[in-house]
Amino acid sequence: MSGRVYLVGAGPGAPDLLTLRAVRLLESADIVFHDALVHPGTLALAARAEKIAVGKRCGRHTTAQRFINRRLIDAAGVHATVVRLKGGDPLLFGRAQEEIDALEAAGIDCVVVPGITAALAASAAVRTSMTRRGLSRNVTFVTPRTGAGEEGHDWAQAVLAADTSAIYMGVGEAVAIAATLVARGASRRLPVMIVENASLPEQRCLAMTLAELGSMRGISGPAIILIGEVYAQGQAASAAGGLPERACAA
Amino acid sequence: MSGRVYLVGAGPGAPDLLTLRAVRLLESADIVFHDALVHPGTLALAARAEKIAVGKRCGRHTTAQRFINRRLIDAAGVHATVVRLKGGDPLLFGRAQEEIDALEAAGIDCVVVPGITAALAASAAVRTSMTRRGLSRNVTFVTPRTGAGEEGHDWAQAVLAADTSAIYMGVGEAVAIAATLVARGASRRLPVMIVENASLPEQRCLAMTLAELGSMRGISGPAIILIGEVYAQGQAASAAGGLPERACAA
Repeated sequence: MSGRVYLVGAGPGAPDLLTLRAVRLLESADIVFHDALVHPGTLALAARAEKIAVGKRCGRHTTAQRFINRRLIDAAGVHATVVRLKGGDPLLFGRAQEEIDALEAAGIDCVVVPGITAALAASAAVRTSMTRRGLSRNVTFVTPRTGAGEEGHDWAQAVLAADTSAIYMGVGEAVAIAATLVARGASRRLPVMIVENASLPEQRCLAMTLAELGSMRGISGPAIILIGEVYAQGQAASAAGGLPERACAA
Repeated sequence: MSGRVYLVGAGPGAPDLLTLRAVRLLESADIVFHDALVHPGTLALAARAEKIAVGKRCGRHTTAQRFINRRLIDAAGVHATVVRLKGGDPLLFGRAQEEIDALEAAGIDCVVVPGITAALAASAAVRTSMTRRGLSRNVTFVTPRTGAGEEGHDWAQAVLAADTSAIYMGVGEAVAIAATLVARGASRRLPVMIVENASLPEQRCLAMTLAELGSMRGISGPAIILIGEVYAQGQAASAAGGLPERACAA
């Protein structure tokens, strides 16, 4: 038996933001290995599959990567359809390469199914295009988190060079992010949007400036920090009495 | 009558890469305004809707933006569910802001449904993560295309500052892109992947160097140019006799 492993993007959270392809794979899966933050409604689609949580929560590895690789390889030896379900898109901050390389080295067929990445769900929530004629022609997706051997990674340079930025896994370090960007020359008035729990019923959108990001507290769910002049409109709406409710309905 | 307008991402091409939410909206739509490049199988989901092509092909406006805005507003006056279907994601190189602003100014309820953006479908095709531990912690999405008043836009700077880049709407200018990046200091050996018609049966993946991009010809379909050290593996596979077929199965 040599099954196939599908690395599938679960999208930002809401089960109806899965792709049709992902839904069909979950429905036909024999076994599903999933991240900790995948929505229960998404997992319920895999009705006939054994479901195994292997994921990491907020960047912490709860199951060692090498052990996950081993389990995927073993599962492909006994099941036809193995799904590895990852939050967002597997190939953007999903640490999928280690799993792909291990599967290829073991001679196991591996297919990637893309998913809606959190920054695009956050953008939909605040109804603000990341690109805009005359204002933003490039977008950076970045994380300030570093692993072993990555201490020299200059995330701030990527943000400073970009018209619009989406910072992943950064909200816990919001104070340091704001301080670093201001110290490196960014304007304290640069517009910022935080979108917490994008696409879920508990979604929250907060418009502020970079200076205000520096005193940000009270974000506990997964969140995306959006930075750039395209968010000036949201800032203005917020100053005039808050974002309209519908601007942030999940 | 005041209907609601949904700006919906159609994804990269394959109809089964639509989200479930997009499918349900198309099925219940009264009228659909769509870009030129949307797949016929996707439009077929909107069985009961009037379907109107308003889109641009390869960046050319075939229907003036102000006229599209007017038609969306008028449609919301007579229909409950108006869908504006855009290739990829509406908020990343989708020119959605002009439509959102026009609808808001007219007091019309407007909701954005995200879609799979082309760069992530291209990444899935070549099974290469855009981010990788120790190698790539930021990703830039950029277009070298400029509109009126954007002549000063420095797309090259964004690419040079990024670990990994995805260039949208650039394949027609591949020669100029390679020349500019090399002149600005990028290595001629920098790994490049071109993915044409990502997610469609006619999908093609081409691994090369930045120097080879400079003599690129024969790409006619919509394509994404991926640049960065994470593509070195694909380059090596290509040098050893071409990418494995399955590495680029749509």
